[in-house]
Amino acid sequence: MRISDLALAAATPLSAVKYYQREGLIFEGVRSSPNQVEYDDSHVQRVRLIRALIETGGLSIAATAEVIRAIDTPGAPPAETFRVAQHAMSTPRTAESIPSTRSRECVHLLARRRGWCISDDNPGLDAAARALDGLYAIDFDAPDSYLDAYADAAASAADADLNALTTRSGADEVAELMVVGTALGDPLFAGLRRLAQQHATTSLFPHTNANGTPS
Amino acid sequence: MRISDLALAAATPLSAVKYYQREGLIFEGVRSSPNQVEYDDSHVQRVRLIRALIETGGLSIAATAEVIRAIDTPGAPPAETFRVAQHAMSTPRTAESIPSTRSRECVHLLARRRGWCISDDNPGLDAAARALDGLYAIDFDAPDSYLDAYADAAASAADADLNALTTRSGADEVAELMVVGTALGDPLFAGLRRLAQQHATTSLFPHTNANGTPS
Repeated sequence: MRISDLALAAATPLSAVKYYQREGLIFEGVRSSPNQVEYDDSHVQRVRLIRALIETGGLSIAATAEVIRAIDTPGAPPAETFRVAQHAMSTPRTAESIPSTRSRECVHLLARRRGWCISDDNPGLDAAARALDGLYAIDFDAPDSYLDAYADAAASAADADLNALTTRSGADEVAELMVVGTALGDPLFAGLRRLAQQHATTSLFPHTNANGTPS
Repeated sequence: MRISDLALAAATPLSAVKYYQREGLIFEGVRSSPNQVEYDDSHVQRVRLIRALIETGGLSIAATAEVIRAIDTPGAPPAETFRVAQHAMSTPRTAESIPSTRSRECVHLLARRRGWCISDDNPGLDAAARALDGLYAIDFDAPDSYLDAYADAAASAADADLNALTTRSGADEVAELMVVGTALGDPLFAGLRRLAQQHATTSLFPHTNANGTPS
């Protein structure tokens, strides 16, 4: 198929496909004549993946390129692909500030309490610590009960992430779901958390339930 | 205190404080002389809050202004403050694309299955549906077991969010934790999920545990 058909098949604007191509995110098609390049289903799959990473996952072009490279590395062990995906998804914005010693220690203690086997360069350590610093800044001390509830939530999601991988065969498909699932699990959780918050709020404060109607 | 002392007390660069002030996010200080304005602890608290919302929560200036307005509305019921905070936190980027009917129905079905009482304008509906569309795009059909695990995670976090509010007295403090907690719960979960993922991956694929050392 031509590039315009590729865009159609991937339900992505042609301008976006050309942009991904210029940025080197799509592997080359087969040149069938001096003016024409042919694409196939593997390109459709790739364009969808890139779009999901950028638009829903919120990754930069550079981070997307890194994740794509990890997927395309033959024989990379799952833990290594996860590591690359996780690092690519640490956005520069959140990487700017260094978390406080207090919040870092708190996250390390929490991980130890859960028996989590993690490496010191896991970007989740600083990401969680930075969020804690924001809570400390408004004098909320994030008691253990609060942290444990979030750790339960994280463990539940991580188990679902890993279980989902067992539905796929082929290293490419596993790696693809690993990185896309890592990127999209965050907004999925964020969306569901807002639903659960509204439900919990209207349960706790029923007299203020002016907007709440059963789903 | 002067504006430079306000910046010091809030551990925020002076340039950022002046920027927040220009954008009308900080209520005015008391003019003590033609060239000097006095600030107090309430300003320190406010600067910290604004910084947490923008830097860790990732909110735009406009969204921050909206949240600040909600906090400063006297007598606003908790459910209403939550609603404003949730809408302000729906970033323009994620609001751009309209989710598919399939993914929207899937989120509605999930909410019904959980017995969640939610309104149709809850931005979490579209946010979760958009994430699902990204998963569908790579041919992952998000089975009920996967969605239920994420819903469990969301419910666990939402309960912790609501419980945290009971540690605070005064409508301002409650509203503040409500909006800051809503903004920072997402990156806290995202960070902890990356830790839990690494732990689960090294448990599932122990032979690839080259980087994993106990925390």
